[in-house]
Amino acid sequence: MNKEKKLSANNPSGFVDRYGKELALKANLIAKIEENFLKFGFSKLETPSFEISENIGKFLPDEDRPSSGVFGFQEENNSWISLRYDLTAPLARYVSQNYLNISNPFKRYQIGNVWRNEKPGPGRFREFTQADCDIVGSSNSLADAEMCNLLADTLYFCGLEKNQYQIKLSNRKLIQGLIENLKISESKQQLTVLRAIDKLDRVGTDGVKQLLTTGREDKSGDKTIGANLSDNQAEAIVSFINIKSLDEIRSAIPNKLVEDGIDELNKVLDGISYSSNFDQIIFSPEVIRGLEYYDGPIFEANLTFKVKNQKNQEVEFGSVGGGGRYNSLVSRFKKVDLSATGVSIGLDRLLYALVQLNKIEVKNNSPIIICVLDEKYLSNYYELLSKLRNQNIRSEVYLGDSGLKSQLKYADKRSSPAVILCGDDEFKNNKITIKKLVPNFEETSRNLSREEWKKSENTQITFDKENLIDEIKKLI
Amino acid sequence: MNKEKKLSANNPSGFVDRYGKELALKANLIAKIEENFLKFGFSKLETPSFEISENIGKFLPDEDRPSSGVFGFQEENNSWISLRYDLTAPLARYVSQNYLNISNPFKRYQIGNVWRNEKPGPGRFREFTQADCDIVGSSNSLADAEMCNLLADTLYFCGLEKNQYQIKLSNRKLIQGLIENLKISESKQQLTVLRAIDKLDRVGTDGVKQLLTTGREDKSGDKTIGANLSDNQAEAIVSFINIKSLDEIRSAIPNKLVEDGIDELNKVLDGISYSSNFDQIIFSPEVIRGLEYYDGPIFEANLTFKVKNQKNQEVEFGSVGGGGRYNSLVSRFKKVDLSATGVSIGLDRLLYALVQLNKIEVKNNSPIIICVLDEKYLSNYYELLSKLRNQNIRSEVYLGDSGLKSQLKYADKRSSPAVILCGDDEFKNNKITIKKLVPNFEETSRNLSREEWKKSENTQITFDKENLIDEIKKLI
Repeated sequence: MNKEKKLSANNPSGFVDRYGKELALKANLIAKIEENFLKFGFSKLETPSFEISENIGKFLPDEDRPSSGVFGFQEENNSWISLRYDLTAPLARYVSQNYLNISNPFKRYQIGNVWRNEKPGPGRFREFTQADCDIVGSSNSLADAEMCNLLADTLYFCGLEKNQYQIKLSNRKLIQGLIENLKISESKQQLTVLRAIDKLDRVGTDGVKQLLTTGREDKSGDKTIGANLSDNQAEAIVSFINIKSLDEIRSAIPNKLVEDGIDELNKVLDGISYSSNFDQIIFSPEVIRGLEYYDGPIFEANLTFKVKNQKNQEVEFGSVGGGGRYNSLVSRFKKVDLSATGVSIGLDRLLYALVQLNKIEVKNNSPIIICVLDEKYLSNYYELLSKLRNQNIRSEVYLGDSGLKSQLKYADKRSSPAVILCGDDEFKNNKITIKKLVPNFEETSRNLSREEWKKSENTQITFDKENLIDEIKKLI
Repeated sequence: MNKEKKLSANNPSGFVDRYGKELALKANLIAKIEENFLKFGFSKLETPSFEISENIGKFLPDEDRPSSGVFGFQEENNSWISLRYDLTAPLARYVSQNYLNISNPFKRYQIGNVWRNEKPGPGRFREFTQADCDIVGSSNSLADAEMCNLLADTLYFCGLEKNQYQIKLSNRKLIQGLIENLKISESKQQLTVLRAIDKLDRVGTDGVKQLLTTGREDKSGDKTIGANLSDNQAEAIVSFINIKSLDEIRSAIPNKLVEDGIDELNKVLDGISYSSNFDQIIFSPEVIRGLEYYDGPIFEANLTFKVKNQKNQEVEFGSVGGGGRYNSLVSRFKKVDLSATGVSIGLDRLLYALVQLNKIEVKNNSPIIICVLDEKYLSNYYELLSKLRNQNIRSEVYLGDSGLKSQLKYADKRSSPAVILCGDDEFKNNKITIKKLVPNFEETSRNLSREEWKKSENTQITFDKENLIDEIKKLI
């Protein structure tokens, strides 16, 4: 072991630890989302973190960095494997590999981490959790409608009110038809157009226009190259993203792809009309969804309330998830040609929003601490411990080497509901003394100060040993 | 999207998918382990997948591969980050970083994946799940005893009988004392000795002797370099690993470190004697635990029953977890000097063993399928769907494009408990027809063939629409 140089303990930038309440909230949210996914008839799949690089391809919006957003590793045989950057590309690989054995359509959900080798920023991590549902093998628009319903119902099930979110709906075929009409034929230029529109939220209409033409420089001086469109072309796209109805699109852009896209959208809307989510749906041609593989209906869940950012300013929260149809992602593989549609919820973002609304509660998981007043009573302490644990009560004998004062401080830091304090008197008389701690105060008397509560309640009580379980159960 | 070359869908070697029952079993096992960890007073921590490489160091037993077992990744600023290869090294980093804010002792559990860039083999993966508990900041032997108790109790809580596992206990100080007495002073040679003993299970006593001296060639022709000890030195080590009692060790190896180790072990045994696990504990000097950072008591949980390997041969299962004391891992960091002890359970291995014993049951999570007999009734089907989902009943309207026969096949492949079959007759008369499917058969009449069961029971029933929920609840 290297003892020469002392190390500074730090996380790599863009990676964070989670502990305590934050983690309990996350587990709680995952359980709710999972319950809802199962209710919608999806089954669970777990794919590994690594995929053969060429199999998942690279459909990320961000190409600013040399390593292009994905963590890749070279194998000993010189082939490359990559950490998954989403849960959709691995699904396409899985379905192609197992298409003879799985149901058709194939409905799976997956909740797991994804990795993006991007520049970290405030609230922008290089590892985050996604919760995905997809239907592979159905070209039916009802499947897209089901995705919108799932998105809406899941947000509702997680505790949001119906006026706190909406589902924006569009179809990639609309912009593709417009691009066709505008004779923007180079694929890289097409992609830059999509990315420009996708940034509307952040850069506004003027920013989009710059990104469509000569490029844009942000406040930090970072320069993004533009799509190099003519002013007329850029104007046509900007007016497209401001249209409010499908009928207007139909008359503004005479094009076969656009026709198809509108027909599909009308069918999706029919499907949603069978549910209670119709009022949450809003047609929004500016919705693009960053990932390159979408080629049909696309949807995005947006929160409609403001949240506070790290500078304590109120800001729009924006998207907590979305998805769309990707009919050619699976067909990149041999022998298989299956259409697909799916949705992805950004779990960490949704959690952040729900925490701001105080929408999630968690219970105290902390143990009862049995203090060690005298080592000669160790076997007695462990006897009490067995009694508690046999009743599934979270508990421990203090395992440090310090005196009673430190032990109480320890229990406090652990947010323990109570400590057990037994010495000569207790063991001689077959009694137990417990001291109730502050978490109990928080739950019972919100309007008292900690000092008032300490005075008002008898925080230390002594009772017969046989009542141990009953007395402890009152506190947890 | 690249449409030129069709891809072959495969996992990278050493990485696997999980789906359906296997995944439900794993979730079930994780829930049980987590409940037990909480019962023992541990709190949950989640560290990221990546760590700054030098902060987690590299204490793996296997150095056969050029990249030394760890997935490392070079950052844009040329520094290196690595995927965690265990959950202990990241804990040491976390504690050092947060020591002012956390409780002392700090008791955390973490359940998560770890990655080893090793040569994959049958049942040997490059990504697997570990479930860890550690106590940082206590040099008390009762903390080591608590780890042994936790290991034993967790295995019991997961469904094993007390005669199906045992906890092997030793202390690294014993072999370190012997190495000192044998004047094996070079650190690389010391490490090779530890690794040789650690391989006893796989290579037997003769194999260990070869590894301690001239090296060993296995059946595949792979050659492992030996520790180059003299015959006398090797003999002394081989006889050490066969000793059965602490007293024998004390008289066989007169050494201060050995004395300390034996004293520690006696205290650990005292601690365990306060619990009901004493009969599961066995002193085993041959236990080493591969990881380099252990420096005190070490423990290992072994299953005592045989399991079938991939060739259907009965074999010893061996270790499903273990751990030990690592007093200097945290002190590699600035400002912090905390002793620690911990335990790690190999979740995938434990799951494999439990599945072989048929010790875990899972319920059927599959949905009720509402078949589409006629598209004109779509709104009626969705009305039924709403009724079911409002009662939290897992259900879906069939979303593919095929006829009834395919829909029934689909429901069968999904293991659905039942399909709902409604057409003209049903909607005219306010009736519902459901067809019960085979999962129900499996649960109710194990002694009948599928055909007998189909005849014996009326698998298709029709009832009043208002009884929908009641009738479905009978089936799930």
